[in-house]
Amino acid sequence: MSWDKEQVMVKLDEKIQDGLVDDRFLPVIKLINSHPDYYTTSCCSGRVQVIELPKIGDKERSTVLGKWHEPVSYEKVRSELDNWTGEGVVYLLAQSPIIHIVCKTMSAASQLRNLADAAGFKYSSIRSIKEQRARSSDTEFEKITVEILSTERMDVPVAGDGRVFPDKEYLEFIIDNANSCLERAHDKSKALLENLKANL
Amino acid sequence: MSWDKEQVMVKLDEKIQDGLVDDRFLPVIKLINSHPDYYTTSCCSGRVQVIELPKIGDKERSTVLGKWHEPVSYEKVRSELDNWTGEGVVYLLAQSPIIHIVCKTMSAASQLRNLADAAGFKYSSIRSIKEQRARSSDTEFEKITVEILSTERMDVPVAGDGRVFPDKEYLEFIIDNANSCLERAHDKSKALLENLKANL
Repeated sequence: MSWDKEQVMVKLDEKIQDGLVDDRFLPVIKLINSHPDYYTTSCCSGRVQVIELPKIGDKERSTVLGKWHEPVSYEKVRSELDNWTGEGVVYLLAQSPIIHIVCKTMSAASQLRNLADAAGFKYSSIRSIKEQRARSSDTEFEKITVEILSTERMDVPVAGDGRVFPDKEYLEFIIDNANSCLERAHDKSKALLENLKANL
Repeated sequence: MSWDKEQVMVKLDEKIQDGLVDDRFLPVIKLINSHPDYYTTSCCSGRVQVIELPKIGDKERSTVLGKWHEPVSYEKVRSELDNWTGEGVVYLLAQSPIIHIVCKTMSAASQLRNLADAAGFKYSSIRSIKEQRARSSDTEFEKITVEILSTERMDVPVAGDGRVFPDKEYLEFIIDNANSCLERAHDKSKALLENLKANL
């Protein structure tokens, strides 16, 4: 079993020191990492983003124009759109909180996924299993990664063909929707922390 | 191990007879079900939808106003928006193909997830494990469900506060984006069939 938790924890401590880990998620991240069967490899407490893509669907080559982890104002989003070069396509995204956790065993992975699901993170899953080897009659799984993910999400194309499309009223409506996604996500994150405290 | 494939296959045959299974996905569905370690429980080859929600974010109580499994015209979407009652919030969604597969063993689940991932279905995961029991020293997993899912997706709020927001040009741009999601999804579905044929 490749289990490089110690090394990952040193890096995480450095990131926390440097202020690179989302404050809102620190209690959840610390709680999960205090359990011997788990370590986290990445996390985000949810965000609103404005991104530019060279063309429709080409998210691999996106550029971030603006990113906010708290509800954002019309003025801030509009300002990013005003600075847009006019090239490609621009999307406004609301993204769910996400945490990736490497789990020591499949049972531990399944338990964590179920606790996250019960706290409202309905898209939580076992995202990948790195290797598997047969040893005697057993199959062994390595680097089992759980993804904790919720359903809050929005992907809105807001500019293209050299034009920002929504008027002020519509853009405000879109931003209200995005902020509402973020607020629901924050509430669920509190529920997640409580559920993990009680059951992990 | 609860393995009720036979019963599920009878129901699937009835659904196919009744034309309730997406033609586009029939070859993939038949191929997966021909393997002794797998059976499918649901599938959709991807779609564009217009849905109405009582309020922002309340997707549990949505009503479908229009649904298309092939690229859709501006006129068809506009017609659904013209028929909207003016209540609640309306979203236009583009949704990835999705297949749920119950797998006999964790190894079989991991293999299928990896094949789907390699074919471009990058959000594929082990979505749930129904039960687990310790028998002697082993942990046993039951009803392991793999979800084959791609990244194509769009969630655009298009109407609310009693008003349809986008003008003709913007709605056409949104629909172009949605159709483009669907076309990329269809291409990936072909890649999935080929990868499963070669490796399953």
